[in-house]
Amino acid sequence: MSPKRLKRKVVPDLQRYFVPAENWEDNRVMITNDDAHHISRVMRSKPGDVIICNHPDGKAVTCQITDITKNHVQAVIKERLGESAELPVNVTIAQGLPKSDKFELVLQKGTELGATAFVPVQADRSVVAWDDKKTEKKMNRFSRIVKEASEQCHRNKIPFIQPVRAIKTLVDESSEYDLKLFAFEEEAKTEEYQSFGMLVSEINPGDRVLIVIGPEGGFSEQEAALLKQNEFVPIRLGPRILRTETAALYALASISYHFEELGCRSCRQ
Amino acid sequence: MSPKRLKRKVVPDLQRYFVPAENWEDNRVMITNDDAHHISRVMRSKPGDVIICNHPDGKAVTCQITDITKNHVQAVIKERLGESAELPVNVTIAQGLPKSDKFELVLQKGTELGATAFVPVQADRSVVAWDDKKTEKKMNRFSRIVKEASEQCHRNKIPFIQPVRAIKTLVDESSEYDLKLFAFEEEAKTEEYQSFGMLVSEINPGDRVLIVIGPEGGFSEQEAALLKQNEFVPIRLGPRILRTETAALYALASISYHFEELGCRSCRQ
Repeated sequence: MSPKRLKRKVVPDLQRYFVPAENWEDNRVMITNDDAHHISRVMRSKPGDVIICNHPDGKAVTCQITDITKNHVQAVIKERLGESAELPVNVTIAQGLPKSDKFELVLQKGTELGATAFVPVQADRSVVAWDDKKTEKKMNRFSRIVKEASEQCHRNKIPFIQPVRAIKTLVDESSEYDLKLFAFEEEAKTEEYQSFGMLVSEINPGDRVLIVIGPEGGFSEQEAALLKQNEFVPIRLGPRILRTETAALYALASISYHFEELGCRSCRQ
Repeated sequence: MSPKRLKRKVVPDLQRYFVPAENWEDNRVMITNDDAHHISRVMRSKPGDVIICNHPDGKAVTCQITDITKNHVQAVIKERLGESAELPVNVTIAQGLPKSDKFELVLQKGTELGATAFVPVQADRSVVAWDDKKTEKKMNRFSRIVKEASEQCHRNKIPFIQPVRAIKTLVDESSEYDLKLFAFEEEAKTEEYQSFGMLVSEINPGDRVLIVIGPEGGFSEQEAALLKQNEFVPIRLGPRILRTETAALYALASISYHFEELGCRSCRQ
């Protein structure tokens, strides 16, 4: 084996915090609440220590801490970082509401794997149903999961979590996407189908891709028909039958591999 | 978009059971224990119903049930199935013992994603330690997880779970593998490294690949040095820092995507 070798910039392994836009002013950043607590009590940082702050626009900077009080940490921007750990394709995962805490697994792992956004979908065969109160309570927890996962995996942006939708609403609002896919094993078993690999090979960096995954019981016939009528392409994700929470992770890992590790945009079957 | 279309054989969606070799005789199969209970009580099957039985050698057959008693189900073989849902590459995941139930997540999802075998590794930075008694108790549970996941995802073979090893032992017994990789983000940040995509592109179907993943704290310097001295190649798995339990899933999903969905053996960077 004599594969080509790549050059890569070394990025320092500093603690990373996502800071809301209103806390940035000129060359200063103010960190508050849980993150301030994390800096002072968990990391036991002192003035002079360096951290990385991420702006919601994706910008990452190194900052030197200048002042620490109980609920606030002041820092001054030192250097803008050129690094980006964002997937070059914008992938939105629309996940049919699964049982127990599987949606949280999809959020955490999907964030690590580079998803841009998540849409919880109240599908016909979803066993659970989320009312408004339940959703609001859950959303706080979900936001924390994607924020912490983004910090841990060194992303530049936190994925966006949309409100719960019905499939119908999702379809009605899907015109903004360049490619719309749905995991539908049954269709992929029929005589003619387009492989996931072929479809991914047609994606261009910057494209917006929507991938819809059914709940444990899959899509109802009505849902599958509606999706197909609206230019959603049925795909299988490998020859094994994946659980609902594994499907999104397979799709994201494959897209990451294709663009970020294989670097092979021109390979077609 | 006008991607090529593929033909695919339709496989019936029947309940699937893995039956030990000693329970096969001529054209008859005997199903016992939990699986017999599942057939009679959970599925409420009757004589005449058809199931799929998998032999440990990977053979899959349809069988017609002839007799059901409390603890035994007799069935007669009808037809051998040509289908295979096995990953064309033999991938062994050596997972540094992680905290809580994350190893079980790796087993379940890794089985769905096509792993051939799993090796739990007692790494320097593993926070947990498994003694013999704990391991034996765990192994029963682990075996059930991979068997159930194999049935659910329609695999032909159940992955093998090896006993707990130290890194040293793993290295000593690694000569049988065609390619040995270890997830080592630090090394991948250095000036020169071989991308995971380039390495996967060199794999041939049937190759035996060993992928070693560190625990939460990663590999110790001694472990990393030992692995490198013994022809284990350091890789990163995408540009984001994956949690230990996500790393194996990324690697398996990527290899599945490369061989089973992209079908692109010749693409090199």
